[in-house]
Amino acid sequence: MTADSKPLFTKVALLGVGLIGASIAHAIRRGGVAAHIAGYTPRAATFEKAKKIGFAHSLHRELEPALRNADLVVLATPVGAFGALAKEAAPHLQKNAILTDVGSVKTAVVRDIGPHVPQGVHFIPAHPIAGTEQSGPEAGFPELFDGRWCILTPPPGTEPEAIEKLRTFWRRLGSEVEVMDPKHHDLVLAITSHLPHLIAYNIVGTADDLEAVTQGEVIKYSAGGFRDFTRIAASDPTMWRDVFLNNREAVLEVLGRFSEDLSALQRAIRWGDGEALFNLFTRTRAIRRSIIDAGQDSAAPNFGRNRPKS
Amino acid sequence: MTADSKPLFTKVALLGVGLIGASIAHAIRRGGVAAHIAGYTPRAATFEKAKKIGFAHSLHRELEPALRNADLVVLATPVGAFGALAKEAAPHLQKNAILTDVGSVKTAVVRDIGPHVPQGVHFIPAHPIAGTEQSGPEAGFPELFDGRWCILTPPPGTEPEAIEKLRTFWRRLGSEVEVMDPKHHDLVLAITSHLPHLIAYNIVGTADDLEAVTQGEVIKYSAGGFRDFTRIAASDPTMWRDVFLNNREAVLEVLGRFSEDLSALQRAIRWGDGEALFNLFTRTRAIRRSIIDAGQDSAAPNFGRNRPKS
Repeated sequence: MTADSKPLFTKVALLGVGLIGASIAHAIRRGGVAAHIAGYTPRAATFEKAKKIGFAHSLHRELEPALRNADLVVLATPVGAFGALAKEAAPHLQKNAILTDVGSVKTAVVRDIGPHVPQGVHFIPAHPIAGTEQSGPEAGFPELFDGRWCILTPPPGTEPEAIEKLRTFWRRLGSEVEVMDPKHHDLVLAITSHLPHLIAYNIVGTADDLEAVTQGEVIKYSAGGFRDFTRIAASDPTMWRDVFLNNREAVLEVLGRFSEDLSALQRAIRWGDGEALFNLFTRTRAIRRSIIDAGQDSAAPNFGRNRPKS
Repeated sequence: MTADSKPLFTKVALLGVGLIGASIAHAIRRGGVAAHIAGYTPRAATFEKAKKIGFAHSLHRELEPALRNADLVVLATPVGAFGALAKEAAPHLQKNAILTDVGSVKTAVVRDIGPHVPQGVHFIPAHPIAGTEQSGPEAGFPELFDGRWCILTPPPGTEPEAIEKLRTFWRRLGSEVEVMDPKHHDLVLAITSHLPHLIAYNIVGTADDLEAVTQGEVIKYSAGGFRDFTRIAASDPTMWRDVFLNNREAVLEVLGRFSEDLSALQRAIRWGDGEALFNLFTRTRAIRRSIIDAGQDSAAPNFGRNRPKS
């Protein structure tokens, strides 16, 4: 047995078994990363779905048996639930366990979980930049993290061995790993994830509200570009409400910049400034190319959607 | 030979052989829709690329031989070039030919082409709602129009037989066909296509300009949602400059609505109004479902990008 196939953890407790929790379980199994996967969800419907799929070795509707002897505990609910969950979990965490999460914001996570972390437990917030527009246990799949980045935001003073172990965990799940300050994480994600979701939700709402264009027309002619936004705007409402409530400052900052730039673009259209439009539209092309070169998106036209496989 | 496999036109002249012109040629060949395809482009580099691919039966750098005896003429350049091109083509159009285009705006097309149309020529503007972020003759492929909609905006008094023939043409290319007033077309497309492109270009520009987040970070963490916008923002700059210069009124109208809605959303975030956020995010999910049900997008999570084929 090589180091790469030996279980890294004895027991991983996944608190939450939706898209991300379930995908972690699938990826752990694929890589043999833990000897035992315990899943926890208090919700009957989610419990039944997860049980049927069978990605967990044990599945629990109560916290204590899920956490017993776990050396890695992963909070994988919407971030708004983290504080209460951490408080409830705290008495059951074993010494030297790593406590982590998968939340899309990090300053608020430190604020909400930090005060509940018992002495001797290694608290290392994490954020895998991966997902789909679907949710629930049935949406999970083992390849979700392949080639994507996971950002760790360990508080100052965290034991380097614990950070290294969590880094190895995410690598074996398929991710690349970066370490960052939580405040900087929140700003980076505000522009690469939160603002894109906000404006996608917004344009879909605007289209839905127009009186002069019917919903049927919006749907029929959505291949003109609109349909791309509806994918993101179909993401989990609870998760995204919590993101915006918990990353207010950074989101408002990048939103301010976006609106300022949009006003300039509006002015260029109003005054027929073709050169300003052409210059922006040329500049943005280069970024697409870099994202494809970095392996973060498909080079296939239209994301490979409308060309049949040859 | 059935009616569905007989050539509908003797000679189709494609004025412009980029993504759309080339795709029309491929789709004509697939369906046996015309006996002869003549391609026209004055640009040496485009001419050579198109020649190498070989989708046209004849390829021309001059207009007259391309148009000679053509019973269908399709303008397929950026819309800003339509006026001059129509003027130059007019003396060479044969009686009873159908003159059409593929431009993304329609009121401006009627304004620019209309005055040049000779007596006896059937002028029927058209807009296939299909494309990819790529451009040039090498980007074309036969399936581009399959299952997408093509909107015709015939001027009042157009011969019904000519409309019917163009409708059949687009159906045999794989499209569904709708007839609409040009002004309504421009408003519908402003929300389903032009505004999505505008805000995609804008957010990519905003991200590129942030000082506190590096371009490397934007690229690495783009899978959080941003990458989706870069696809649209990689579309042809000349084509899109011309769209915004030629659909100003409708774009400014829907942009005003978008900005108004965005301000309300900004306010909800600032004041922590979770209910308003949750309600919008729930409503937008339904539209995604309708688009998938209508066959206008893939149901696969993440557009099917990150899950390996099983």
